[in-house]
Amino acid sequence: MVTPLRDTAPTLDTVAERAGVSRATASRVLSGDPRVSDRAREAVRAAAAELSYVPRQAARSLATSRSDALAFVVAESGEKFFADPFFAGVLRGAQVAAAERRRQLLFVVVSSDDDRARLEEYAAGGHVDGAMFLSVHGDDPLPGRVNRLGVPVVLAGRPPSRRASFPFVSPDNFTGGRLAAQALLARGCRRPATITGPRDMTATSDRFGGFQAELTEQGVELPDARVVEGDFTIGGGYRTMRQLLGSGEELDGLFAANDLTAVGALRALRERGLRVPEDVAVVGFDDVPIAVDADPPLTTVRQPLEAMGRQMARMLIDLADGGQATSVTLDVALVPRDSA
Amino acid sequence: MVTPLRDTAPTLDTVAERAGVSRATASRVLSGDPRVSDRAREAVRAAAAELSYVPRQAARSLATSRSDALAFVVAESGEKFFADPFFAGVLRGAQVAAAERRRQLLFVVVSSDDDRARLEEYAAGGHVDGAMFLSVHGDDPLPGRVNRLGVPVVLAGRPPSRRASFPFVSPDNFTGGRLAAQALLARGCRRPATITGPRDMTATSDRFGGFQAELTEQGVELPDARVVEGDFTIGGGYRTMRQLLGSGEELDGLFAANDLTAVGALRALRERGLRVPEDVAVVGFDDVPIAVDADPPLTTVRQPLEAMGRQMARMLIDLADGGQATSVTLDVALVPRDSA
Repeated sequence: MVTPLRDTAPTLDTVAERAGVSRATASRVLSGDPRVSDRAREAVRAAAAELSYVPRQAARSLATSRSDALAFVVAESGEKFFADPFFAGVLRGAQVAAAERRRQLLFVVVSSDDDRARLEEYAAGGHVDGAMFLSVHGDDPLPGRVNRLGVPVVLAGRPPSRRASFPFVSPDNFTGGRLAAQALLARGCRRPATITGPRDMTATSDRFGGFQAELTEQGVELPDARVVEGDFTIGGGYRTMRQLLGSGEELDGLFAANDLTAVGALRALRERGLRVPEDVAVVGFDDVPIAVDADPPLTTVRQPLEAMGRQMARMLIDLADGGQATSVTLDVALVPRDSA
Repeated sequence: MVTPLRDTAPTLDTVAERAGVSRATASRVLSGDPRVSDRAREAVRAAAAELSYVPRQAARSLATSRSDALAFVVAESGEKFFADPFFAGVLRGAQVAAAERRRQLLFVVVSSDDDRARLEEYAAGGHVDGAMFLSVHGDDPLPGRVNRLGVPVVLAGRPPSRRASFPFVSPDNFTGGRLAAQALLARGCRRPATITGPRDMTATSDRFGGFQAELTEQGVELPDARVVEGDFTIGGGYRTMRQLLGSGEELDGLFAANDLTAVGALRALRERGLRVPEDVAVVGFDDVPIAVDADPPLTTVRQPLEAMGRQMARMLIDLADGGQATSVTLDVALVPRDSA
């Protein structure tokens, strides 16, 4: 019963027809007017999404009444937003670039579907000229929805392929994974393990991909039993390291997919009486301040957090000004300290 | 040459006259229109401030076109915003209360005068229905300026007396200072010292006032040499504790005006080979997670951070809805652990 997509650009009438509501109701939903039933709102949004409807009128009117504000959206719990210095680093860069070009930066934490709907309404109201999204998981529809309102979107990190149309700024995660493997191999590790990030993020698959590729090329195996999924937190690093140690698998090296995970893993190793790097060498990812303070100080892969934030904000302002933006991949580098 | 203030409410014409600009220019400045020279903008703002001009028109128009958004403004560097779990705690509460009443929460960090001007423009554009301010120092004019645009304002912490007209939510800092003194005295401390917060904050003067009052009532002296000004950071706590230890003053107890300061002080004490609490007992303030993880775990004064955030957001929404708000002082409590 699906109407085939038309060749011509869909109009407001097409959306209203598909949603089974009046043109006026469809218009209200798409302009963020709250005086609409939840049912009508859902139907219109679903129809607009299916038809890839771009509200040109809205986009034009937004363009003429600029808010001079950019949203910095973190799709995580407020806890993670504050606990992970990754966000502070990227934010610092975005703040600098926004100030240079006189834009107000607004940080928004989005952790529930209600939060998503609310941000969409806010964007529909013309209160932001663009939105950058950090820590997007899987196929979160929010960036697409905000963009469909005529609001430019930039992503931190490579989007999953099907959403490749959004410009993004990403560290070279694949090379980062390779560098981590090289550091462990250079120490003589032959039984490496890894605690990855959340499986539904491209940062996770890219870092893991690079790590595995390098090991394979060097003839070192990485059996499934030495790969566990973490969540980019200290607590998660501790739990998953205990899990690895309790599995009976022998291991002599660990690639933790971010520094917080590595710090949690160090604690679990210490509790087991294992020495780092003598018994188990550990490499992290990010190079946030906690890496320096860790015991022992962490060997890690540095990603340029501030530069990411600056680039994202600049791209977004260019897009908001009607210009173009090209996705950027930024170099990473191994920072050798004492843990590997 | 100062025109005496009139008895009747000042009008746009009065403001324009005082500023020496046309009525149209004054109107543009007050509605946040960027097409005005910097000089005219400053003159009009100064005149509006002197005359306590309230742009009724703007206030009304804002009221009819609600943005359903609240600004959560932290008047600190982005570093402090992320480094101090105090903000995360208050934010969590504000987030919950904003979600309950379907408002978008926007976090804004304001650390320069440019940032202040930008936020004012954003508020003037009708993009927020209210603003709560955290970590306001001295006589920062920003809350007053935002309020003069017709945007309700709520403060975290007691404002300096001259600004007492803003509703606020504050922990009972004076009682908190008393509790800290009682904890040190109960351990037998007779030579207490304190590292305060920044001198230009009421949280600092109130905590210090309570601490001193209790000591005086118990007949224990607190000479100036045992009082140093900190900055609510770990690094500041470390530096000022070294300063205290290097001054030659003997001391057996420390009230650190927040937990981060206490953690820095613990490090300096450890480096000196002093045992906590045997040689020097330490009491912090806040009860953020770092208090539990400190070595030894911190005895501290708990302030209800989430409740503060919830209250502030609720008051602000009530004000935005045209209601009233009454300032609230929330109870604090001593949390005994191992450091005192």
